[in-house]
Amino acid sequence: MFQNFETTSRPEQGPPRLAALRGELAGAGFDGFIVPRADAHQGEYVAPADQRLAWLTGFTGSAGFCIVLPGVAGVFVDGRYRAQVKAQVDLAAFTPVDWPETRPGDWLRRGLPDGGRVGFDPWLHTAKEIADLRAALEGSGIDLCPTGNFVDRIWHDRPAPALGPVRIQPLEFAGEPSTDKRARLGAELAAAGEAAAALTLPDSISWLLNIRGTDVERNPVVQAFAILQADGQVALFIAPEKLSQAVRDHLGPEVTVQPPAAFAPALRALKGPVRVDDRTAPLQATLELEAAGIAVRAAPDPCLLPKARKNPAEIAGMEAAHLRDGAAMVEFLAWLDAEAPKGGLTEIDVVTRLEGFRRATNALREISFETICGAGPHGAVIHYRVSRETNRPLRPGEVVVIDSGGQYLDGTTDITRTVAVGDSVDAEARAAFTRVLQGMIAVSRLRWPKGVAGAHLDSIARYNLWLAGQDYDHGTGHGVGCYLSVHEGPQRLSRTGDVPFEPGMILSNEPGYYREGAFGIRIENLVLVEEAPPLPGGDAARQMLCFRNLTWVPIDRRLVDPDLLTAAERDWLDAYHAEVAARIGPRVSAGARAWLDRATRPL
Amino acid sequence: MFQNFETTSRPEQGPPRLAALRGELAGAGFDGFIVPRADAHQGEYVAPADQRLAWLTGFTGSAGFCIVLPGVAGVFVDGRYRAQVKAQVDLAAFTPVDWPETRPGDWLRRGLPDGGRVGFDPWLHTAKEIADLRAALEGSGIDLCPTGNFVDRIWHDRPAPALGPVRIQPLEFAGEPSTDKRARLGAELAAAGEAAAALTLPDSISWLLNIRGTDVERNPVVQAFAILQADGQVALFIAPEKLSQAVRDHLGPEVTVQPPAAFAPALRALKGPVRVDDRTAPLQATLELEAAGIAVRAAPDPCLLPKARKNPAEIAGMEAAHLRDGAAMVEFLAWLDAEAPKGGLTEIDVVTRLEGFRRATNALREISFETICGAGPHGAVIHYRVSRETNRPLRPGEVVVIDSGGQYLDGTTDITRTVAVGDSVDAEARAAFTRVLQGMIAVSRLRWPKGVAGAHLDSIARYNLWLAGQDYDHGTGHGVGCYLSVHEGPQRLSRTGDVPFEPGMILSNEPGYYREGAFGIRIENLVLVEEAPPLPGGDAARQMLCFRNLTWVPIDRRLVDPDLLTAAERDWLDAYHAEVAARIGPRVSAGARAWLDRATRPL
Repeated sequence: MFQNFETTSRPEQGPPRLAALRGELAGAGFDGFIVPRADAHQGEYVAPADQRLAWLTGFTGSAGFCIVLPGVAGVFVDGRYRAQVKAQVDLAAFTPVDWPETRPGDWLRRGLPDGGRVGFDPWLHTAKEIADLRAALEGSGIDLCPTGNFVDRIWHDRPAPALGPVRIQPLEFAGEPSTDKRARLGAELAAAGEAAAALTLPDSISWLLNIRGTDVERNPVVQAFAILQADGQVALFIAPEKLSQAVRDHLGPEVTVQPPAAFAPALRALKGPVRVDDRTAPLQATLELEAAGIAVRAAPDPCLLPKARKNPAEIAGMEAAHLRDGAAMVEFLAWLDAEAPKGGLTEIDVVTRLEGFRRATNALREISFETICGAGPHGAVIHYRVSRETNRPLRPGEVVVIDSGGQYLDGTTDITRTVAVGDSVDAEARAAFTRVLQGMIAVSRLRWPKGVAGAHLDSIARYNLWLAGQDYDHGTGHGVGCYLSVHEGPQRLSRTGDVPFEPGMILSNEPGYYREGAFGIRIENLVLVEEAPPLPGGDAARQMLCFRNLTWVPIDRRLVDPDLLTAAERDWLDAYHAEVAARIGPRVSAGARAWLDRATRPL
Repeated sequence: MFQNFETTSRPEQGPPRLAALRGELAGAGFDGFIVPRADAHQGEYVAPADQRLAWLTGFTGSAGFCIVLPGVAGVFVDGRYRAQVKAQVDLAAFTPVDWPETRPGDWLRRGLPDGGRVGFDPWLHTAKEIADLRAALEGSGIDLCPTGNFVDRIWHDRPAPALGPVRIQPLEFAGEPSTDKRARLGAELAAAGEAAAALTLPDSISWLLNIRGTDVERNPVVQAFAILQADGQVALFIAPEKLSQAVRDHLGPEVTVQPPAAFAPALRALKGPVRVDDRTAPLQATLELEAAGIAVRAAPDPCLLPKARKNPAEIAGMEAAHLRDGAAMVEFLAWLDAEAPKGGLTEIDVVTRLEGFRRATNALREISFETICGAGPHGAVIHYRVSRETNRPLRPGEVVVIDSGGQYLDGTTDITRTVAVGDSVDAEARAAFTRVLQGMIAVSRLRWPKGVAGAHLDSIARYNLWLAGQDYDHGTGHGVGCYLSVHEGPQRLSRTGDVPFEPGMILSNEPGYYREGAFGIRIENLVLVEEAPPLPGGDAARQMLCFRNLTWVPIDRRLVDPDLLTAAERDWLDAYHAEVAARIGPRVSAGARAWLDRATRPL
């Protein structure tokens, strides 16, 4: 079992740790210190050794930071975590701050009206982050100073760094030898006049070297640093214990291996210009280069776009993973539909059983993220994660949001279905579900000319909700990695998505609707960007792209009001369900097959 | 009659002028010189004295520039003008360059591989424009040098500057006294810590001072410079002959008047910081301030947003102008529908007659722009302007695009209708018209949460075209001024529109479709942004905006395929037509009324 349902926070540990930290700061002549949730790799999941924010404050959310000043310690969290932070921290010692509404620069100016020295660990912040904060502090008399990590000094039982063994990602699934990737990207650096690039993102390094790891939960990435040279050679900085001889052989002679501590000296020994991604790399990488007089070019990590454009083997793997995962989802939904109306099932039961169906594929490496299972009003909490304290039964007449995914060797899945408990459904929930479905269908049917980015397409999913005075407070979709991070950039289907979509990119298509205290709705498929075939009567010279669907699982027909749909929308849903039946039917048990036939019949 | 149909370009004049310019450049030690189409006010229309690009090259388009080097003179034009430029310039002397595909920086590097000195007139380029070009030339050895205007030195019969009399815009239509506007904007400067703002946009100055002018055709703006002080006082730099005593009295004691040549010395005498809009003001304004050691703040012209947010009097005026203009359009369309099928009408006949119907309102001050009337294949030329050479008859079975507008004291109109000549219509044109109409209806019906900008909404208009493999190569809409420029920023309904829509903004809603050599389609209404009323079942806390329609003229039902429309789209069109009949019916002649009743009956 991957997921657990314990509440790990112990708020009473916070105050003494905070006092100890303040003591260290005062002794070193600092007026403040920033404790981010991020580690040096800026990933979504961090290893136990890097959970400094949780250790200090008790807050375990996936985003946020604490700024410790002599008189106040602000815990900055976004809208998802406003309730959670209050339950997890000692409110006598820590002050929750609404972020990004309250900007840290303004908050610091109020907290230190006469200026002061605020420290931060330059391994844990990007150059862009610090530059933005420095700009916000201009003229305030507040100095933002890179320093060692004061939390680490007082965290005496800090866990050891993760040392999960590195595994080779087979060429069958990676689709391109690492040597080819390295040569190709090295040539791009050379063409840009750059001698090397500093790589600090685990999924970039894992993709580039065709390796996977177990350093953090949920994401099969290898935590390491690397330097890619313009000649295609790579210096990899990683704990040597993680590498078997087989992995060393796989890496080959063009990849040298050194311990992580050698990364900084290696940067200082480079010839420039060196590319550093100022939005993802720790500021320390830039500081090391600058101290050695080496020219720094701020530009995106060279792996980002090539990794986002999946190759044919990765696409085939993602398709296979989705058929396997779809069959598990159908077994699960058939079970749920039989059991839930009887009453007595809880959210934890559902999460546990769903993981069981995925494990039964004998191919599951990990779940892609903590399953979100929100029954009734819990469905309106967008990032709800059930614990023993919040667990509640599914009641007939409610709708349940279930957002989950699996990590398989050949691909990563991410799917949300919202299902009714029993056949009787609230009319408002049904109308909202139908509008969300219209948005999801509108995105699925899209064709668009090359050059268009997510910011231009996001509203397509919202149109029918908007007409009803409704909306949802999250993007419509995120990029997805291939047996890598389930949230992967640079493309995104949201108002902030400025990267044009390209063939091979994979995105989620997940509009939703949330009525606080009542119900939540989300429907999510993954889709692949591909060249759109020319149409008779279409503009001959116009190159267009479209989405190919990857996810094949029924959408709950009981929640659809057919009268709200256009003919084209009804046709899409019927055709989708026919294809679900054809693709998944042969892969499930007889009982699930009977359920699937009912669930996929035309409207 | 405002519009004429002459072709004014005489290509044979170009080569001797180019030779004379090259002689001047060589004598002054320059290797090149940039001749833009813009004047110091960066407007869409320029006075005869400022038509340097047309004088030198023969090219009369509304955008573009020429870079003169010793061996080549490139005329940079965008997609709209690729054919026109070839007909207007002597191709032995001038080389058309596809812009923006070919970037001037790259072109200059190729033309001056060993570097050189390229001059430009800093009154005719914005700071941003020059900064971008300088960045593109980094390391090339090419120096971009501000200098006097070499074209003016050789243009011996250059017309005198425009001296059109200034008129007072009555408070009834302006809606807010100039003193109030000046105090309000001055206070905003003070709050931003700025002592003054340099104003160089004619429509900003005209709006701020509630004045209008006749300096350039089509746009009733006053060409002038101004300095707005934080205390609300204004220094206006304008030829004194333009101002009657009545206008001086209207301006009052807080507005001082000096000749245009006093603008630069006045800038040098300011106390800083001074706001200068680096995207609209001539670079020279910044250079003057910098030379005097005055701090410059690059920020948008303070009039832009307040001018875009129309006040209740301006909204009432725009509505009245649209009813008046709509009645003229209905008289015109009734006439056209009776006459065109007989054969013999030409594009010029149509343009002339349409202007006549507008003049018959006895309220027309100007047309908003040259009427676009494109019959058959001419409809596919997006910015087609008929001349005696291109004029062609309207033939039965064709569709005709008619894009036109009027300038009235109370408001500005801009409307496009695409109409069939006779009752028999090509099926492909009808299907495309219906898809364009679907986009236009989708925008009309929009509701969206506050904070959304044009870039997020533009694709709503394209969805049905995209599904058919079609698209159009222009934005969906532009801002519109109130008895000011028909193209007004900063809002725009296009992929590049990053300014969130606000109540009071007016935009065009004009999707189209163009099949080269065959036909063109465009349907355009103007719409006003306003607060959306709350809906039952809508999110209570979500503030939403919507469009209110301003344009009331029938849409040709013969071009609509009802089978392609959804029920909601059919309902919208029928409701729109019912409202057109109710609002415009009482305002037209009996004959037009009978036509209107037929044209507005339900589908």
